[in-house]
Amino acid sequence: MSTYNLVLLRHGESDWNQKNLFTGWVDVDLTAKGEAEAAAAAPLLADAGLLPDVVHTSLLRRAIRTAQIALDGIDRHWIPVRRSWRLNERHYGALQGKDKKATLEEYGEEQFMQWRRSYDVPPPPLDADSEFSQFNDVRYADLPPEVRPRTEALANVLDRFLPYWYDAIVPDLRVGRTVLVAAHGNSLRALVKHLDGMSEEAVVGLNIPTGMPLHYELDDALRPVTPGGRYLDPEAARAAAEAVANQGR
Amino acid sequence: MSTYNLVLLRHGESDWNQKNLFTGWVDVDLTAKGEAEAAAAAPLLADAGLLPDVVHTSLLRRAIRTAQIALDGIDRHWIPVRRSWRLNERHYGALQGKDKKATLEEYGEEQFMQWRRSYDVPPPPLDADSEFSQFNDVRYADLPPEVRPRTEALANVLDRFLPYWYDAIVPDLRVGRTVLVAAHGNSLRALVKHLDGMSEEAVVGLNIPTGMPLHYELDDALRPVTPGGRYLDPEAARAAAEAVANQGR
Repeated sequence: MSTYNLVLLRHGESDWNQKNLFTGWVDVDLTAKGEAEAAAAAPLLADAGLLPDVVHTSLLRRAIRTAQIALDGIDRHWIPVRRSWRLNERHYGALQGKDKKATLEEYGEEQFMQWRRSYDVPPPPLDADSEFSQFNDVRYADLPPEVRPRTEALANVLDRFLPYWYDAIVPDLRVGRTVLVAAHGNSLRALVKHLDGMSEEAVVGLNIPTGMPLHYELDDALRPVTPGGRYLDPEAARAAAEAVANQGR
Repeated sequence: MSTYNLVLLRHGESDWNQKNLFTGWVDVDLTAKGEAEAAAAAPLLADAGLLPDVVHTSLLRRAIRTAQIALDGIDRHWIPVRRSWRLNERHYGALQGKDKKATLEEYGEEQFMQWRRSYDVPPPPLDADSEFSQFNDVRYADLPPEVRPRTEALANVLDRFLPYWYDAIVPDLRVGRTVLVAAHGNSLRALVKHLDGMSEEAVVGLNIPTGMPLHYELDDALRPVTPGGRYLDPEAARAAAEAVANQGR
């Protein structure tokens, strides 16, 4: 049986990860630590023999640069690049730009965790004229307003991500390409939920650490051969996922 | 009359530009100076209002990274990326990896200038098993051997570049996109020869400096509104082009 190789990579630490702010669609850059995480992904990919033939990224700098740095490190800077807003981070609505700890204190644990981790409760929408809005961002200018989010729950992310999965990523897998998806905590959680057939409850507890390549070998029905996939550095991934889960504490 | 906007950008200084070696298809990186040149292209593009909607690059790191750095500097990191070996530098055959000054001394001015600047005399072919050969490079693995060059004259570069111009770049221009082509001294000379309808004799004297955006406004027949285009920093471009012409002296 031939199988398909898919590698998921959440961007390295960003300026706003470091500052503990809700980021969403705000286009912040990597920190020096984030760049180092991206560079560290390269030897993991090389050692595993997972040399991407094509890369899919979001339209956000932290994912784009993570892919560039990791691919440059394994001489794969030349592969085809495809980008889509459908791989963007979850839009965090009115929380974008807010401090996670202050939000926790202001709204309390229950509301905070509901916004952060509930499956289908979005935060309040962001005003179109907020400094953290992307409503006038030229990169989304071709999107009619009804599909340009002003807030999203994870359920919304899955809905807007899946068309890209079927129409753009699956075709690359089907022709035998090793596919790298460089994206975000929540767009990747949405993909993992889909691949592993996770329940809405189970995905709430799923954390994907930054900069850790996660390999899915997929069978002919595009189901994971190993449920949950396989981190190329499992021990580091476990420690990092715990740290993500504790953000805002 | 609506016109089309095309911006040509030769990569910044590379390790082998600095060492004065013939590079061709050898995939060397930018120097720190080359990175700075790429970064300096960004404000020139912004000031001219030339914000690319799509970028075409070769498969070589120095062009890829030049585009990444320049685009990152004007918040255009998210635009679609297209790559092709047809934008690669001229393949320098057996000269790849050789010192330009030593080659000049060994073969004399006439032979040296014929290899460097003649329109249709290629250097001797490179052995497939040379350390500077790309014959086993995975990025060219899909190319049948008869199109994978072992040496090229500028005429050969034009022949293999033009199909990509017509099939990939022109369609992007025709839908009104501002197109950035990040490539190499000789692949860009080939394009300029084509655009400006230069004679084989005239193109011999044409030098394109590194890291200097060259803007072509094209009419409906895709002919330059201003022959020769317009460097966004004309004075710096003139000085730099003279330096290129004197390489190997």
